[in-house]
Amino acid sequence: MKILKSTDQSFENSLSELLSFETVTDAQLVTTVDQIIQAVRVGGDDQLLKYTQQFDQHPALEFSELVLSPEMLKNAFDELGDEVKNALEFAAQRIRKFHEAQLQSGWTIEDQFGNTLGQKVTPLDRVGIYVPGGLASYPSSGLMNAIPAMVAGVSEIIMVVPAPKRKLNQLVLAAAYLAGVDQVFTIGGAQAVAALAYGTESIPRVDKITGPGNKYVAAAKRAVFGQVGIDMIAGPSEIAVYAESDCNPEWLAMDLLSQAEHDPVAQAIFITDDEQVLQQVHTALHQHLEVLPRGDIARESINNRGAMILVRDRAEGIDVINRIAPEQLQLCVEQQIAQDMTAGIRHAGAIFIGKYTVEAVGDYCAGPNHVLPTSGTARFSSPLGVYDFQKRSSLIMCSEQGVKPLAHVADILAQQENLDAHARSARYRT
Amino acid sequence: MKILKSTDQSFENSLSELLSFETVTDAQLVTTVDQIIQAVRVGGDDQLLKYTQQFDQHPALEFSELVLSPEMLKNAFDELGDEVKNALEFAAQRIRKFHEAQLQSGWTIEDQFGNTLGQKVTPLDRVGIYVPGGLASYPSSGLMNAIPAMVAGVSEIIMVVPAPKRKLNQLVLAAAYLAGVDQVFTIGGAQAVAALAYGTESIPRVDKITGPGNKYVAAAKRAVFGQVGIDMIAGPSEIAVYAESDCNPEWLAMDLLSQAEHDPVAQAIFITDDEQVLQQVHTALHQHLEVLPRGDIARESINNRGAMILVRDRAEGIDVINRIAPEQLQLCVEQQIAQDMTAGIRHAGAIFIGKYTVEAVGDYCAGPNHVLPTSGTARFSSPLGVYDFQKRSSLIMCSEQGVKPLAHVADILAQQENLDAHARSARYRT
Repeated sequence: MKILKSTDQSFENSLSELLSFETVTDAQLVTTVDQIIQAVRVGGDDQLLKYTQQFDQHPALEFSELVLSPEMLKNAFDELGDEVKNALEFAAQRIRKFHEAQLQSGWTIEDQFGNTLGQKVTPLDRVGIYVPGGLASYPSSGLMNAIPAMVAGVSEIIMVVPAPKRKLNQLVLAAAYLAGVDQVFTIGGAQAVAALAYGTESIPRVDKITGPGNKYVAAAKRAVFGQVGIDMIAGPSEIAVYAESDCNPEWLAMDLLSQAEHDPVAQAIFITDDEQVLQQVHTALHQHLEVLPRGDIARESINNRGAMILVRDRAEGIDVINRIAPEQLQLCVEQQIAQDMTAGIRHAGAIFIGKYTVEAVGDYCAGPNHVLPTSGTARFSSPLGVYDFQKRSSLIMCSEQGVKPLAHVADILAQQENLDAHARSARYRT
Repeated sequence: MKILKSTDQSFENSLSELLSFETVTDAQLVTTVDQIIQAVRVGGDDQLLKYTQQFDQHPALEFSELVLSPEMLKNAFDELGDEVKNALEFAAQRIRKFHEAQLQSGWTIEDQFGNTLGQKVTPLDRVGIYVPGGLASYPSSGLMNAIPAMVAGVSEIIMVVPAPKRKLNQLVLAAAYLAGVDQVFTIGGAQAVAALAYGTESIPRVDKITGPGNKYVAAAKRAVFGQVGIDMIAGPSEIAVYAESDCNPEWLAMDLLSQAEHDPVAQAIFITDDEQVLQQVHTALHQHLEVLPRGDIARESINNRGAMILVRDRAEGIDVINRIAPEQLQLCVEQQIAQDMTAGIRHAGAIFIGKYTVEAVGDYCAGPNHVLPTSGTARFSSPLGVYDFQKRSSLIMCSEQGVKPLAHVADILAQQENLDAHARSARYRT
């Protein structure tokens, strides 16, 4: 695992290099994805079936085999053992409650002329949620995508989840049932994104597509953006963990590994002002690695993209964190100190405050969304939320008298822009 | 101008055809734009200067000639005549007041275990606003982009505006001064987007780029999305105007033309339940066309993309409007009726309610933003607003006791997802 020290002359360069991760720009990938999208637009269900047979090695002979009935979802839920069922319901309820606090509503204000201005908030009609399948098939992703849409008041939620060789985690279906998903199709990749964006005979066109996927999914989302809305272009998952001398190195090492086990390109970064702690966490991490079932994935992630950063003090720690703009941040210090630090954090997807707040509770059941801005995009974007499934319309209502001062000003400015019809249409009302 | 009747058998197809407008997919355009972006990333200021000489026929010999000093902005403002200065200040003040109502703030909630959950709201650090130049150089665009960013609390606002042959509307600079823009560069096109997204020696890298531009700008914004945030991929401007028997056809014809004069691909659609009104507006529109300075542009727009739609009744009018999801909608009926109709409108960027509320006041000074979702994207997106310049971070703070029930559930679900390190890191806290 790389070790960076802020006192090193090369620190700035090393940090920049650590954080450089290009989003999709591979020309070959873009061309391939464009071809898939065009083929699905033209070929519909038949083409989707072909791609699913080809890319997912799915044995289906008819498109209808890729459609999961509401009964299958309900059965998957009913057949869960009590412990898992209760855990899923506990998570769903907390996610719902948190997201209800994000609901936005419309408002109006009046001006001095008797005109009314405002904003109307409307849920999206129909959305598509992409849940990764195969090895990384996560029921929690179903909850995290569908519940905010439900809370927003979206009328129809379509879920796609690839089932390579027809293999599917039944818990994904149970989660879909619990979250109120309307229809599920076992398709994935760029072809699923194309189907949701343009519609096919069986799959209705949606208004927005959310949820993370592999690089084909990311490139397809970029390509269809504008035709439909998208949440974000997701990169590999990341965590930054900050701790000082009073920490538990065993815990922190496992927290870092819980990120690293996701993906060989996931990124775990440890930041501390204490060189001894750095060494202790380093040692514990390599010990834990030996016993983890997904140790090989975690090792690759740690070797390729992991880092331990030694900073001079807490203030510099905050600066480094803001430079990283991590998807997930654990501040593993006393609660009051962690709260004070939080005030200085400008860029992070989710902040886990205090040494007891382990990131894994955020993945499943704390309540906030686990779909978060990656690759430094926390500089400008937000966790997936109810606001992603609501949109706004501006409202302008002028009275016969009230419009006059406004139309007068519009007339003057329109003339400056040489837009004569604008000026005239305004003048008609004065 | 096309006339569609909802009673015609072909109506659905005709309406779909009217509304089909593909966003950027031209492979040649994408390749060109990618090359420009790469060249600017490598070549910095020098390359920007070359492109600006080439594409904008700008006579600058040094990059520094493309930088406008704060004094130049202030001078432009100071030299305005009183009428225009007052109009600009009137507009800026109303825009500021409306957008202040959009400010979001953070919140926290507590759960039954003593854990705190919440959302922190932070302004973006630095944003770039793109203001179209040349013929369509609109000072109002400067106000509409910069003021929401200022209200959000953005620390640094960089404006780019192309100045073909060094020609620039001084009012654009005056508006930049009034809106509080920090720096202005007279560059445009894909090269300006690339410079803002990646930074050059002189231009600081921004976190988000907003504002409409031509197809090169749109393609470049799509390409850099992920590296920086973007507001939307803007298409041509559109209006839908709904009226009934009690309307003033002269007014409505001019309202439609005020959209059509923007651009040969702008779209103006008139919807009515009254065939006589349809004919009257049609006649008035062609009369007005004769006297407009920008009549040629408006005529091309009207012929290519304009339409008049006859519907059976008001309810069907609302359905058709929701199908269109217009950027701008005028409901030119009595105020109470217009308000009732507004309740049924699910998709529109801005709704102008009642027969006195002319769209032109929205372009300049009503208060709401004139950067609005085009090409049917009002189905899933919103007007540019303060929320585009703020972002959220989730907050999770667990106590030593409070984390236990959460960690227990995370442990169970992580095991179901075969994420062993997740389960272990959660278990450490129980």
